[in-house]
Amino acid sequence: MSTSTFGRMFSVANFGESHGPAIGCLIDGCPPGMELSEADIQPDLDRRKPGTSRHVTQRREADLVEILSGVYEGRTTGTPIALLIRNQDQRSRDYEDLVDTFRPGHADYTYWRKYGLRDPRGGGRSSARLTAPMVAAGAVARKWLRLQFGTTIRGHLQQLGDIDIPFDDWQEVGNNVFFAPNRAVVTRLEEYMDALRKAGDSCGARVRVCAQSVPAGLGAPLAAKLDADIAGAMMGINAVKGVEIGSGFGVVTQRGSEHGDEMTPQGFLSNHAGGVLGGISTGQDIEVSIALKPTSSIRLPRRTVDRKLQAVTVTTEGRHDPCVGIRATPIAEAMLALVLMDHALLHRAQNADVRLDVPALAARAP
Amino acid sequence: MSTSTFGRMFSVANFGESHGPAIGCLIDGCPPGMELSEADIQPDLDRRKPGTSRHVTQRREADLVEILSGVYEGRTTGTPIALLIRNQDQRSRDYEDLVDTFRPGHADYTYWRKYGLRDPRGGGRSSARLTAPMVAAGAVARKWLRLQFGTTIRGHLQQLGDIDIPFDDWQEVGNNVFFAPNRAVVTRLEEYMDALRKAGDSCGARVRVCAQSVPAGLGAPLAAKLDADIAGAMMGINAVKGVEIGSGFGVVTQRGSEHGDEMTPQGFLSNHAGGVLGGISTGQDIEVSIALKPTSSIRLPRRTVDRKLQAVTVTTEGRHDPCVGIRATPIAEAMLALVLMDHALLHRAQNADVRLDVPALAARAP
Amino acid sequence: MSTSTFGRMFSVANFGESHGPAIGCLIDGCPPGMELSEADIQPDLDRRKPGTSRHVTQRREADLVEILSGVYEGRTTGTPIALLIRNQDQRSRDYEDLVDTFRPGHADYTYWRKYGLRDPRGGGRSSARLTAPMVAAGAVARKWLRLQFGTTIRGHLQQLGDIDIPFDDWQEVGNNVFFAPNRAVVTRLEEYMDALRKAGDSCGARVRVCAQSVPAGLGAPLAAKLDADIAGAMMGINAVKGVEIGSGFGVVTQRGSEHGDEMTPQGFLSNHAGGVLGGISTGQDIEVSIALKPTSSIRLPRRTVDRKLQAVTVTTEGRHDPCVGIRATPIAEAMLALVLMDHALLHRAQNADVRLDVPALAARAP
Amino acid sequence: MSTSTFGRMFSVANFGESHGPAIGCLIDGCPPGMELSEADIQPDLDRRKPGTSRHVTQRREADLVEILSGVYEGRTTGTPIALLIRNQDQRSRDYEDLVDTFRPGHADYTYWRKYGLRDPRGGGRSSARLTAPMVAAGAVARKWLRLQFGTTIRGHLQQLGDIDIPFDDWQEVGNNVFFAPNRAVVTRLEEYMDALRKAGDSCGARVRVCAQSVPAGLGAPLAAKLDADIAGAMMGINAVKGVEIGSGFGVVTQRGSEHGDEMTPQGFLSNHAGGVLGGISTGQDIEVSIALKPTSSIRLPRRTVDRKLQAVTVTTEGRHDPCVGIRATPIAEAMLALVLMDHALLHRAQNADVRLDVPALAARAP
Repeated sequence: MSTSTFGRMFSVANFGESHGPAIGCLIDGCPPGMELSEADIQPDLDRRKPGTSRHVTQRREADLVEILSGVYEGRTTGTPIALLIRNQDQRSRDYEDLVDTFRPGHADYTYWRKYGLRDPRGGGRSSARLTAPMVAAGAVARKWLRLQFGTTIRGHLQQLGDIDIPFDDWQEVGNNVFFAPNRAVVTRLEEYMDALRKAGDSCGARVRVCAQSVPAGLGAPLAAKLDADIAGAMMGINAVKGVEIGSGFGVVTQRGSEHGDEMTPQGFLSNHAGGVLGGISTGQDIEVSIALKPTSSIRLPRRTVDRKLQAVTVTTEGRHDPCVGIRATPIAEAMLALVLMDHALLHRAQNADVRLDVPALAARAP
Repeated sequence: MSTSTFGRMFSVANFGESHGPAIGCLIDGCPPGMELSEADIQPDLDRRKPGTSRHVTQRREADLVEILSGVYEGRTTGTPIALLIRNQDQRSRDYEDLVDTFRPGHADYTYWRKYGLRDPRGGGRSSARLTAPMVAAGAVARKWLRLQFGTTIRGHLQQLGDIDIPFDDWQEVGNNVFFAPNRAVVTRLEEYMDALRKAGDSCGARVRVCAQSVPAGLGAPLAAKLDADIAGAMMGINAVKGVEIGSGFGVVTQRGSEHGDEMTPQGFLSNHAGGVLGGISTGQDIEVSIALKPTSSIRLPRRTVDRKLQAVTVTTEGRHDPCVGIRATPIAEAMLALVLMDHALLHRAQNADVRLDVPALAARAP
Repeated sequence: MSTSTFGRMFSVANFGESHGPAIGCLIDGCPPGMELSEADIQPDLDRRKPGTSRHVTQRREADLVEILSGVYEGRTTGTPIALLIRNQDQRSRDYEDLVDTFRPGHADYTYWRKYGLRDPRGGGRSSARLTAPMVAAGAVARKWLRLQFGTTIRGHLQQLGDIDIPFDDWQEVGNNVFFAPNRAVVTRLEEYMDALRKAGDSCGARVRVCAQSVPAGLGAPLAAKLDADIAGAMMGINAVKGVEIGSGFGVVTQRGSEHGDEMTPQGFLSNHAGGVLGGISTGQDIEVSIALKPTSSIRLPRRTVDRKLQAVTVTTEGRHDPCVGIRATPIAEAMLALVLMDHALLHRAQNADVRLDVPALAARAP
Repeated sequence: MSTSTFGRMFSVANFGESHGPAIGCLIDGCPPGMELSEADIQPDLDRRKPGTSRHVTQRREADLVEILSGVYEGRTTGTPIALLIRNQDQRSRDYEDLVDTFRPGHADYTYWRKYGLRDPRGGGRSSARLTAPMVAAGAVARKWLRLQFGTTIRGHLQQLGDIDIPFDDWQEVGNNVFFAPNRAVVTRLEEYMDALRKAGDSCGARVRVCAQSVPAGLGAPLAAKLDADIAGAMMGINAVKGVEIGSGFGVVTQRGSEHGDEMTPQGFLSNHAGGVLGGISTGQDIEVSIALKPTSSIRLPRRTVDRKLQAVTVTTEGRHDPCVGIRATPIAEAMLALVLMDHALLHRAQNADVRLDVPALAARAP
């Protein structure tokens, strides 16, 4: 019941601080016999890592992962997989001024109220750096899901501040630093970010993540609903303030005659549900959208208080992402992978003997 | 690790089916010595119960709760509190036609794929009727939070289909069957619902829920973040497809210089965060907004398949809420109460010895 | 993480007090599609119930179980199974004198220190009556294990106070009220109990429980070891003060050359391990032995204190088992069934894909 | 719900294999603000580590612990504490012969049946080496319990094979490699072990562990009983086959008039209960005794089978403890510390507000 552990059957316990010796995680419940090495994990970490363009934080971290346990002769053994990432670029002096000051929009004040003390270096444990172990664990889940069900999990930037990014092509996502699925908009995004950085300000973003080839039947009727777990996992990503599944907030103005996805022998006719009905997967694509708030660390001066609740002004220099949403795509993908994997194992614990004599409905009618 | 249990320290295990003998829940972890009787719980159940107006389902259920354990001479003993609600109005024949048919937008298909069989009477366990035990448990949590911290948890309808409901006054919420905080809009809501019912269709809704006087420090840095748990609890409510905390999806177009809530010795100057930073409560109001999809049970004919995946058409007569969002307000309040209570106990397990020599910041500067 | 819930995947949440309205439990995780009715559960409850002979408590309880949920048309649906047993014979006046007095050997004092108040009627929640729901849940687990693996779980009295009971025949266990596997010793046991009752005293007992046809591979390397979970479940039975698996305390004087069970192609040559190696089942019989303390409620006067810590003398009249060990056999069987069932589900969650090309070793060489 | 995690509120997730890169653990839930460094942990690891005498395994491991997270400027921050111990002496070639052979009394066969493959180097994860992280975590728990309640946790060898070791003096325990509390018996123990080693055989042992100054009220009525959790933790230690609390198996022949510990205003008159009644601590000493089987790795030839279930003979040379019980004392102490710490936090989560106007009863009357 560790409050730092995600998942029930495929559990991931996260540890570390932004500027401590190391960060990492402990994966438990991974099925045995799967080929696994650092090479399966590193590419996802590389997609998330800082310093890859002028539009994200300039902190230099190789984010090299080491597998400490749970793998023998290149295969998972079924025992816990410990993943270790040593921190390298620990410029703690950047944060000395912040020991006594609570930055607006940051967790400085809440950690202090909760624990009576806090590690101020780079936000300590509240840093988005702690999403790296989740990405690493997600890579393991993603591989198993792909081998087991052919599941693919992909995400992209949907909106950057005021700029809407129309979906064009999944192939484009890897061709730009924004994870934008549309080549035409990239220059505009770069100009937008350059202006923002110059202004010393930051902006929000919206990210979409989608899982295909997810088997029907994952989830549970109550409490451990698949969509509830997805929502929890997404809202738990740093800076996320909103989560939608399927039509999301669009459902408010929909009619029942529009929303309910009709079925035919050839498959579902629409996917307003986003792949989940009654907390259980339908076999359609799992469709999730999240809103990320603008980075709280900005150069513009802000009013706040110190530990004696005296008024002070704070400006944050350091090295920060002007839009945390830019690097959020691989994180959201990883979190979705973790939830799906967890539910795949939970499902077969209870229902391994269920046999139906008719095939699953196609995700979409041709 | 029951998949039907909410919460860690204040846990609520839910059981029952819409048309089975009974529904109920088992609350564990309630602190001892609190005065408690059915009279503390029944009013919240009465706010949620069906049949209170022509705009909701006409099913007749008294929803009388019985405390089976955990209370002695009018006080909680610290042992599990079992709550029982007998089902009364079980018109199972209404559902006989649906045994073999999967209604669009319902969990019929997903339950069948998961379990290989399902209880078709009134949706079985996928019925929103199962929110009644959560409302009952929420009443217990709410009482403790009020006694301990003075916490109040209130909600209201924010939007009904196309009709936006401007917030006017909390006092109005109890004066109409829609939980609308605005007297002026009620007639329009009634006309809207009458037209919808006549059309045999249904509509979505948006509900806001808000907790005041929540102490700072509740939550955890990762996994068990307060906002993550709230999002999970809200998305787990029947028909919910979107969850926002604080500014929600509005953050996408905000700037950091706007979003980050400034602090002064007199208190916070704004509450875009919705009361949570870094997964931990700030002491400000917890602000949550949810989107509920239109009821899937409508009189208009819909295409679907049966258990042999043959094409059929389904129309749902039965007795259904034309807008499930109308009765969602007390449910959302209850879920928020449960999450806050759980975190209040979790917090003091670890941090009971934390003492700060300065008071908490006021929720809002005067 | 309810502290009243047993098990991880097959979880049983227990509720109720000895003299409250009802006791019962909530089973979650039961696989769907298994035939189940009260008739599957009642026989085990009848074996445990009070008042069946002059050697046990004379309290009259029919212990009739009602299934409230999770079963539809005679089959489990995969949703939580709530079991309810109404208390009938609530002679609370028997306990009025005990409200302020802490009986030696009872939980009166510890409940008071923990909760600040307690339900004194019949021991409240500390009563062995709360094992009835576990026996009921155990009946469900036992049925599934039998259908799935052919597992049988049986127990018997091994020692009653000073009287050792040599094992003769499993068939005899059901032929006497002591669960003694030896017809020859029954008269001696009756005389022993009659003398004890006349003396107003009580005695301890030793019970053995054994599971056959348990598949190899159940358990986990650490923490959730099968033997650790069995030990926890057994020590949690009221009055148990010692647990042994396999050779138990006999291992202290064994040599490695004697203890390690040799294997041949025909099967294991001995079972000192009691069916568990490294926390994982071997496929041999699971062998468990437990020690139960003498009933603390006796007619002989005892020194104790009251709630003001003043010295008082207490004698317990009421209706009590002079040897709680006599009725412990069905309870220990149930607890073993619950642990095995839980691990069977846990095992397949992670390892459902493991395929070995050689059969399991026979539990014993011919 | 990781099956490698101990505890609920103070949770310890264990990882690693005997001959992998590293072993360690992740502690979550530790209260913030406690001074902590490696120097608090290393002494306990040194007491457990191999190679300290000719009577234990000659493997050379410094067992140096590194704190990776959760500590800032010498104090716990309340976030997860990751502890890392690099393996050094990995003579994997010692185990090459054993890849295909299942050693009697070892977990080789069960791991293979469960996972379909296993890490054969030094027993992989089934090695007692994995108790090192538990000892490290136990040191953290022990420190907090001492600071909070003045709790002391001590253990000693009670019996080595056929040699009973009468308790003489706690001070003696640290003066010999056997953890024997009696100087007079040490020479005899050495001779016994020398003879055993010469014979190529091994022997069992009995260890007692005792906690003093444990507050009354820790534990729970059902499932999470303090004694149940202790029994689970102890049975989970490698090689343990029996657990007793208080009078243990001695209760079988006790009478109620003897067993029930009387109370006077001056305190308890005896401690047959071993400090737990009804699953909740009494404030008396927690008294636990465990039986450890003889080491399964012996030089004497043993019959077994290989992965094709063909008959083979195995003798184990390697470097092994001829009596695993010798090094078990610090392990048992650590496990007891972990259970008590977990329950101390659980207790205050629910019962932090309980106030009694009379002091706790003294653990023993003068």
